[in-house]
Amino acid sequence: MKTHTYVEIVTIGDEILYGQITDTNSQWMGTELNKKGFKVIRKTSIGDTKEEILTILEEAQSRADVVLITGGLGPTKDDITKNTIAEYFGVEMTFHQEVYDNIAELFKARNRELTVLNRMQADIPSNGKVLMNKVGTAPGMWFENGEKTIVSMPGVPHEMKYLMENHVLNQLQEKYHTPFIVHKMMRTMGIPESKLAEMIEDWEENLPEELSLAYLPRMGQVRLRITGVSYDETDLKDKIEKEVVKLRELLGENLYAEEDIDIELVVSDLLKEKGLSLATAESCTGGNIAKTITGIPGASAYYNGGIVSYSNEVKESQLGVTSESLKNFGAVSEQVALQMANNVREKYNSDYGVATTGIAGPSGGTKDKPVGTIWIALSTAEKTEAKLLKLYNNRKLNVTVTTNSVFKWLLEELKSGN
Amino acid sequence: MKTHTYVEIVTIGDEILYGQITDTNSQWMGTELNKKGFKVIRKTSIGDTKEEILTILEEAQSRADVVLITGGLGPTKDDITKNTIAEYFGVEMTFHQEVYDNIAELFKARNRELTVLNRMQADIPSNGKVLMNKVGTAPGMWFENGEKTIVSMPGVPHEMKYLMENHVLNQLQEKYHTPFIVHKMMRTMGIPESKLAEMIEDWEENLPEELSLAYLPRMGQVRLRITGVSYDETDLKDKIEKEVVKLRELLGENLYAEEDIDIELVVSDLLKEKGLSLATAESCTGGNIAKTITGIPGASAYYNGGIVSYSNEVKESQLGVTSESLKNFGAVSEQVALQMANNVREKYNSDYGVATTGIAGPSGGTKDKPVGTIWIALSTAEKTEAKLLKLYNNRKLNVTVTTNSVFKWLLEELKSGN
Repeated sequence: MKTHTYVEIVTIGDEILYGQITDTNSQWMGTELNKKGFKVIRKTSIGDTKEEILTILEEAQSRADVVLITGGLGPTKDDITKNTIAEYFGVEMTFHQEVYDNIAELFKARNRELTVLNRMQADIPSNGKVLMNKVGTAPGMWFENGEKTIVSMPGVPHEMKYLMENHVLNQLQEKYHTPFIVHKMMRTMGIPESKLAEMIEDWEENLPEELSLAYLPRMGQVRLRITGVSYDETDLKDKIEKEVVKLRELLGENLYAEEDIDIELVVSDLLKEKGLSLATAESCTGGNIAKTITGIPGASAYYNGGIVSYSNEVKESQLGVTSESLKNFGAVSEQVALQMANNVREKYNSDYGVATTGIAGPSGGTKDKPVGTIWIALSTAEKTEAKLLKLYNNRKLNVTVTTNSVFKWLLEELKSGN
Repeated sequence: MKTHTYVEIVTIGDEILYGQITDTNSQWMGTELNKKGFKVIRKTSIGDTKEEILTILEEAQSRADVVLITGGLGPTKDDITKNTIAEYFGVEMTFHQEVYDNIAELFKARNRELTVLNRMQADIPSNGKVLMNKVGTAPGMWFENGEKTIVSMPGVPHEMKYLMENHVLNQLQEKYHTPFIVHKMMRTMGIPESKLAEMIEDWEENLPEELSLAYLPRMGQVRLRITGVSYDETDLKDKIEKEVVKLRELLGENLYAEEDIDIELVVSDLLKEKGLSLATAESCTGGNIAKTITGIPGASAYYNGGIVSYSNEVKESQLGVTSESLKNFGAVSEQVALQMANNVREKYNSDYGVATTGIAGPSGGTKDKPVGTIWIALSTAEKTEAKLLKLYNNRKLNVTVTTNSVFKWLLEELKSGN
């Protein structure tokens, strides 16, 4: 019995090979396919050349049941996917009135003039089934090739997502019967991968055969993913639950979420649940904490706002940091961090105030305070505390790890507190 | 004569196929290889399975001269790349003292205890040349296979980059002789791809044969990339320069940079050059403008700071927006945007003040002010103006496009002004 439906993802575009855009499509597609029980066995990026496209169409079908292609459907000359697929199947183009009407409507809504190039986007290889794209001008196309399926979608992320969610995933599930796959994600922070591995070594070795474990380290965090594959759903869920209980015990405080959720979401859920509010005072993170929390829809329920105090003048005039502290201890100091957190909490009338001040790099480091020297502070009505982080020689990494450290601290406080 | 050295990039890890991490490595590698004249012909992501790795090693070498592999070199059980490469070549492991010493040193610096698993990271397939990794515990490995080269690197981005920059790129250039490749990027904003294509159609059709053009649309911007390949460097540069002059004329105001540089960098360079300063007042962008500008090293020279005013209370108390305006026109209004921009400029003692207030979505929209209704404002000592953007039904896209629109406006102002 065949236990898996294999999918290959093919992204087309020189710009991906040349590194001029990041391919985020295949990540999103991988996640969604996985949730539906499809097994992505390979992702390939190739250039906008006919030979490459013809070759990969053949190759991918030799390995996978389903080939999902994105890219190369735009209105310009370097977009050749559609014509190449027609050539692959040896078919002509057919004009689709419904697709044309959709394009015309989109242009009307945007007050733009329809071009000849756009009109040609309504031509579809004659053996293709159109997947209407209501959010863009290039339609999706579904091709049956015996047991195999080829789907072509535009590379614009929100258009690809629209097509996947409204057409492709459902139709694939109808066509193929898939085994039951369960992932359980355990997210940890504050413990390095190798130490973690030793800590849970015995447990890992005794996992039931349906289960496997993966370590996914990233930016000071390690995500542990337990994957189970079986046709017996109840038994599988039962086995995973039993292992999760053991793992929870082993991980202790390092575990911050039992699902694949970023820490700011855990924090925001708790703030909402407890009806508490937050204000931020950021120096070295430069607005990243604010940006991260406001990236969550509905953040206005618990986030009042914040100050990005990049200059000392702003730290004094807007945040009320004393000039004595700035002079005696410097902007990167426990004293300044404490004042920032406390004062932003008071000024913004919030339950929690958090602050960051440090040397993100690449320049600005001294012997006493090298790049990566960062103070974070947390203030409530009862107390204000600061912690020193000694991080890396990398600006972006420092900003990210500092932001996460603030959220971890907030989480601990939220869990321990009232 | 062989005109290209072909490179394939292979990323190993179930987490990439399952969509649990974004593969940013292959983008970065593509960019750097391209700059050095190597032609990346394919990128492939496969899972952590021996069969897949063995297959891709064979396949990739049939197409490319160089195979660059990242991932699967960690200390844990699911990291099998190294052992699989040894099996592929039919060789044993050799212990490398220098690698071990480096691992020990790294652990000492981090005050962590060395584990048995870490010690095994000093075992290298006996036909491999070690590429010392000073920033992590897994070394890079270089394998000669006749004319072909296989390089294995860890998947941790900053470790991969260290190895590429310090070992791999140089050694590849030594081994292979590469043709001359020139890319010229022209970055535009505010004009849709199809209209742009029509505007420059005649020019594009008459490009010399050594040159080609690609459209790279992204988040309300279109980047145009002219690529030239030739062994005659002087002639190639000359031809590109001639075409750039024509294209510049055709693009007019839509062109904002003639290199692959984000608009915030163009703005920050001009601010620095003119000795002018900036303050931000953000509602719907929630700190994204601040975060974007402070992402640039040295931003403190021209960025004083900003306020994230997520609640109306903060708009009043911290930004001095009048309660009458908030009551009569609402937080998302021209009047509020104007006050935010003007007041943050004054409070933060800056030459420019910019502000955003709008409905980013997904909720909060009304019939009069649907999701995507966003006001941006720009204030100088002489004048304060606001513009209405009618954007999308997508929170993230709205934040990004709003941020870019603010920078575009700032750029026009900086170019036109004193």
